Amino acid sequence: MNAMNTKASDIVLFGCLGDLTRRKLLPSLYQLEKAGLFTQQSRIICVARDDIKQSDYLTSVADCLSEFIDEELASESIANLLAKITYLQLDLLNKEAFSALKTCIGDSDNSLINYFAVPAVIYGSICAGLAQHDLNHAQARVVLEKPIGSSLITSNEVNDEVAKYFTEQQTYRIDHYLGKETVLNLLDLRFANSLFSTKWDNTTIDHVQISVAEEVGIEGRWGYFDQAGQMRDMLQNHLIQILTLVAMDPPLSLDADNIRDEKVKVLKALKPITMANVFENTVRGQYIKGFLHGQQVPGYLDEEGANTQSNTESFVVVKAEIENWRWAGVPFYLRTGKRMANKVSEIVVYFKNPAHNLFSEYYRELPPNKLTIRLQPKEGIEIQMLNKVPGLTESQRLQTTKLDLSFNQAFDNLRIADAYERLMLEVINGNQALFVRRDEVEASWAWCDGILSAWKTTGQELATYTAGSSGPVASISLIARDGRAWDE
Amino acid sequence: MNAMNTKASDIVLFGCLGDLTRRKLLPSLYQLEKAGLFTQQSRIICVARDDIKQSDYLTSVADCLSEFIDEELASESIANLLAKITYLQLDLLNKEAFSALKTCIGDSDNSLINYFAVPAVIYGSICAGLAQHDLNHAQARVVLEKPIGSSLITSNEVNDEVAKYFTEQQTYRIDHYLGKETVLNLLDLRFANSLFSTKWDNTTIDHVQISVAEEVGIEGRWGYFDQAGQMRDMLQNHLIQILTLVAMDPPLSLDADNIRDEKVKVLKALKPITMANVFENTVRGQYIKGFLHGQQVPGYLDEEGANTQSNTESFVVVKAEIENWRWAGVPFYLRTGKRMANKVSEIVVYFKNPAHNLFSEYYRELPPNKLTIRLQPKEGIEIQMLNKVPGLTESQRLQTTKLDLSFNQAFDNLRIADAYERLMLEVINGNQALFVRRDEVEASWAWCDGILSAWKTTGQELATYTAGSSGPVASISLIARDGRAWDE
Repeated sequence: MNAMNTKASDIVLFGCLGDLTRRKLLPSLYQLEKAGLFTQQSRIICVARDDIKQSDYLTSVADCLSEFIDEELASESIANLLAKITYLQLDLLNKEAFSALKTCIGDSDNSLINYFAVPAVIYGSICAGLAQHDLNHAQARVVLEKPIGSSLITSNEVNDEVAKYFTEQQTYRIDHYLGKETVLNLLDLRFANSLFSTKWDNTTIDHVQISVAEEVGIEGRWGYFDQAGQMRDMLQNHLIQILTLVAMDPPLSLDADNIRDEKVKVLKALKPITMANVFENTVRGQYIKGFLHGQQVPGYLDEEGANTQSNTESFVVVKAEIENWRWAGVPFYLRTGKRMANKVSEIVVYFKNPAHNLFSEYYRELPPNKLTIRLQPKEGIEIQMLNKVPGLTESQRLQTTKLDLSFNQAFDNLRIADAYERLMLEVINGNQALFVRRDEVEASWAWCDGILSAWKTTGQELATYTAGSSGPVASISLIARDGRAWDE
Repeated sequence: MNAMNTKASDIVLFGCLGDLTRRKLLPSLYQLEKAGLFTQQSRIICVARDDIKQSDYLTSVADCLSEFIDEELASESIANLLAKITYLQLDLLNKEAFSALKTCIGDSDNSLINYFAVPAVIYGSICAGLAQHDLNHAQARVVLEKPIGSSLITSNEVNDEVAKYFTEQQTYRIDHYLGKETVLNLLDLRFANSLFSTKWDNTTIDHVQISVAEEVGIEGRWGYFDQAGQMRDMLQNHLIQILTLVAMDPPLSLDADNIRDEKVKVLKALKPITMANVFENTVRGQYIKGFLHGQQVPGYLDEEGANTQSNTESFVVVKAEIENWRWAGVPFYLRTGKRMANKVSEIVVYFKNPAHNLFSEYYRELPPNKLTIRLQPKEGIEIQMLNKVPGLTESQRLQTTKLDLSFNQAFDNLRIADAYERLMLEVINGNQALFVRRDEVEASWAWCDGILSAWKTTGQELATYTAGSSGPVASISLIARDGRAWDE
């Protein structure tokens, strides 16, 4: 697909005063504008229920761009962007009120992108309002932000509501991890390099680690988070999406549905975690007060608004097993937590050791080859290889050396696009490959619900960990029992 | 083996006034001295037939160190080295004269290293002289420089002479390519990294190219070279040694004989090149006058001392096939020539393309992964991989990216030891792994003699190439007929 052919679109941002719009969506639209990826005829309609004057809203947009864009702003691009924006006051719960949106849009050949940057409970109302005024026509799309429900049942409720008015082909479910360069690169790395494609299976891969460590705590949203927990907040979506891209079989083609067909197959092959095996295969943790970069931070139960009896996990490890021919015997260790020592997100693929150690005089065990795909703090890819240490006195001493494929370095300091820029562009282009299909959501929830239910039934205890640490001791023991260790 | 345990040695340099001693051996001994790898008790006895005063010889050593060492000299190391050196006048053809050497060495527990930096025709005389005075005792070694003969028969003559007095375990045949860091690294790369060890065969490797391109011409040794030709001068030794290291099966251990057992197996599996197939599988070339870096250089037949009727090749390509389970169907293209455009020596391992091209919309054919092991101009290792080009407008455009493992960069600009330093140290340490065993020499000659004989029988014509070019057109056609191209 050629971005230069970007079709003219009317982008309706529902929830335009919210954090997501201000921090991510408007800055992304600015970048698309600056990159020349918007046609002149495109429009942006910003919808919220507040009574705000158009001029005041435009001022607030300009302010938020200055605040959230970390580079010098191009005044011409700002002017062009602002010229496309219309603020529209609308009561999202009132179907009839959508006539104002209809009027605002008028007759247009533009594709219509309805971006729902609002809580999922009102997705249904918005869809109904759009449908009431024929704004769910064939050229219309809806973009759904997570969280969509908190279980298979509640996510189905939301998806069912949307499905009354929009087909699956019109529905774009965001998981912004799918817009990150390194994640996008996974398919290219896996399928364009025979060094990897020929041995991406249990004959040469020992295990995979997927870690998303956050430094942040609960940040004033304790009430929401305590209902969700880290399993629903991070693992069910981001980590599982990454897992599917690492583990999927080669798709028939790069078409959206061929890719998603293979992702679903992985999810369906996940070995259920039940009462019988939940204890060995999972760790739940909750942070207590500690120090982060030298500064004291409160424990989960000391956070503002906390219920001191809460049993919610802010950290989770799951040892996932994929029951298929490719991955039998290769565990995928998933780990994510808040208030960890460092903000690090990475996928580490550990290859098996060579079948025989010729260098046993120097190494009792050879360090394995590993492929590290780093999402944070600096997107990049590294391969750890072993190499002779040069020099006269080093007859066969080996050294691990990292072959670095960091994007910024390898590609002349190109700016790395934010995930939302990429995803917004894909919606505009009508390519669903980077969005989560409903059957993926369902399979993912089905598996996670099983774990949540097993925790509840068995009353699996929370392991505490100090804020600013690398998680509870139990998380280290879990992987150590398999003779392995977390990547450091 | 720990270099700190280096045993005290008496090193006798036969031919101490020659080019090799001055350019390579003395500078290498200086580096070993500087690195603290010489014990205090070690001695260096420099032998030639000229009548030179000790003090004059030491002055000439100091001069040659300044001339041939490309770094600031450490005066203390020079003083220590000179203190170990004794000049000894000796007629190498007179057995009895070796009593002077015996006297000079005296009673000593040192191992005795006899380095033959003289033409192979007098190896026998030197051995006889040493034996005459019991200098072929169990602690004695001989180091033989190439060329050892010019065919299986003549090399056997030399080796037989030496073998009368020294066992194979005492005999160290130099091929200085085996002392280069990148060549040493081949075993480590291949056997310490499962990414390579698991698929180093015809299932994933498409073909291998081994190129040694020289810029130099004949450099005043036309008479010698015209007898030899590029096949004997370069391919029979250096290129074939590299081939064996790339292609050998894993050795039982890193012990010298286990490694050499495997190398010999490769040589024995080389498909013979005969009258029947020599034309398709080889190219012989000879340069005509041309330009090198903008400067006019003469053709082979215009060089000083040339016989204008000469039919000797200064360039050769051989498509080698290894008839065993690992390499069936994987050609090794060997190419070497003088007066080429650039001084480049490299091994390039081409992996097969992925079985299926998912990116056919963007690439009719995907560039393959390739591993480049560069010996010249800058020792290093690179892996070519494919990667998504970052950026919004690049949805699935791929780019080849080189993962660079250049020694100088990866290892903090460590000085790369010259091959002779490494080899000298290995002789001192009594490790034969990096030296060519007699059965290797024989198998290599047997195969090359076959090609030379087929050329003679069929009268295969010389292809001319312009000095400063990349060789005759026929060399490009040879590989093109297989649907491949030389690495650029």
